[in-house]
Amino acid sequence: LLGSDLAPGVLVKAESLQVTGSFKARGACNAVLCLLEREPAVAGVVTHSSGNHAQAVAWAARIAGLPATIVIPASANPAKIAATRAFGADVITDGVTYDNRERIAEEISRARGLHLLHPYDDWDVIHGAATVGVEIVADAPAAGAVVVPVGGGGQLAGIALAFATAAGTDAVLYGVEPETAADAALSLKNGRLEHLDADPVTIADGVKSKQIGDRNYEVIVSRRLVKDIVTVSEDEIAEAVRVAWQTLGLALEPTGALSLAAYLSRRVPPGTSTRPTVLSASGGNFDPATVAGFLAPR
Amino acid sequence: LLGSDLAPGVLVKAESLQVTGSFKARGACNAVLCLLEREPAVAGVVTHSSGNHAQAVAWAARIAGLPATIVIPASANPAKIAATRAFGADVITDGVTYDNRERIAEEISRARGLHLLHPYDDWDVIHGAATVGVEIVADAPAAGAVVVPVGGGGQLAGIALAFATAAGTDAVLYGVEPETAADAALSLKNGRLEHLDADPVTIADGVKSKQIGDRNYEVIVSRRLVKDIVTVSEDEIAEAVRVAWQTLGLALEPTGALSLAAYLSRRVPPGTSTRPTVLSASGGNFDPATVAGFLAPR
Repeated sequence: LLGSDLAPGVLVKAESLQVTGSFKARGACNAVLCLLEREPAVAGVVTHSSGNHAQAVAWAARIAGLPATIVIPASANPAKIAATRAFGADVITDGVTYDNRERIAEEISRARGLHLLHPYDDWDVIHGAATVGVEIVADAPAAGAVVVPVGGGGQLAGIALAFATAAGTDAVLYGVEPETAADAALSLKNGRLEHLDADPVTIADGVKSKQIGDRNYEVIVSRRLVKDIVTVSEDEIAEAVRVAWQTLGLALEPTGALSLAAYLSRRVPPGTSTRPTVLSASGGNFDPATVAGFLAPR
Repeated sequence: LLGSDLAPGVLVKAESLQVTGSFKARGACNAVLCLLEREPAVAGVVTHSSGNHAQAVAWAARIAGLPATIVIPASANPAKIAATRAFGADVITDGVTYDNRERIAEEISRARGLHLLHPYDDWDVIHGAATVGVEIVADAPAAGAVVVPVGGGGQLAGIALAFATAAGTDAVLYGVEPETAADAALSLKNGRLEHLDADPVTIADGVKSKQIGDRNYEVIVSRRLVKDIVTVSEDEIAEAVRVAWQTLGLALEPTGALSLAAYLSRRVPPGTSTRPTVLSASGGNFDPATVAGFLAPR
């Protein structure tokens, strides 16, 4: 946990400094290791992702000595595709779109006998992400609030489970979504699993999933382990990226700056030095041209 | 010390995450506290700086409850001037240039009875910077090399003293300068204190001093506690800033990326997992427009 020059009541969990540049390494690592324990003879894993989960699974599979096939939309950020290949994964992009990627991954799983690793609707992935929460409890047991970006909901669900099972802490959990991708906020409000009809338009490309996973719905909504899910505008996200870079010294991607955006726009408790607010800065794999534009608008 | 996705043999001392955004907070804090111990009735401190030392002294003085006057060239980065004022310091810029700032600070010191705090040629400041080295020894006693930017030489001298007085480590120290500001490299080579005739032209605005301090010369050159001082080009510095932001997740200023530039251009030992190379990333207070240009060239 990093302090910051913003205020004494703010602590930052900088998962942008995590191996592969995001918290996704935790879930991927746990899922691959659990898989090997259950099925030592498994032929390999396959997953679909346009972003941080792709690199994380490629990295975790390499460590475990397991072949990995990653299905990535052809239009995804070339830098992320290259980074995933650099970890030794078999990357498939031909004919892959955001809409058909899950189906293609399922077909490959069946045809090649590979274990299909869901990016967020998988207990092993969620439990891996939960280690973020375990570490926050250990380092800041007096935290009053913890703020976490929500896409598929894996990170928020994992952290919520960690806090629900930890002794000696009563921190309140908040999720954050872009206004344009507020399906989880709506699900929590309405008490049913809501989903977006179309791909949301947001600079926070790590939280574009159209609905949270069933398991994450169970933790976040049914078990009521999260107090609220707040939303932030695109301008607020861009401003948070700028503040993160200039004031925190952290190169965050827009998705990784969601919690800071919620803090700066006063939609979560400000925190005090005795009851700090912890902001999850979940990733740092940004598109340089986009972020350069936030720093110095053309 | 942070690991990195660059290589297992590289560790980064991220002083960009330090309070006030640079290692300068250490020297300023130590100097102000030592001053108060020696002269409890001192009226205040005055210093001159265009950059990180200004904010660091303003911060340290505020903590100690001591008035601080900071002389900053009128043409300096407005963001740094504002940050210094935000710490409650009396900032003087009227008629101040890079050439007359030291003289003006001396005049203010005499006229108002304020203690003049030199940015780097002061044992208290050097000993404060030495705590960077103390922490590196504690965290990576097996380090094979430590790489440190050189402007006035305070950080390098401090770290060199820390390593010279520590038991159980035999790391070799390297300094790094821009090619256009290579006075320290020349001083070490020639065995005499060399100085630049004109202000150097470099994007690394934290190392523009024309010569290293007398005390730092004593440590670095006379006592031979530094193995070599290498130089890097402006393009290599810009590339290192880009790599720091994209691969390390650290928003570094060009000066803070000098050690990484030396590593990427293979002018210092690459390090191994058992004998790592430690790179000091000394600061993160950058000019947004300049750095945006490195990320996405126009």
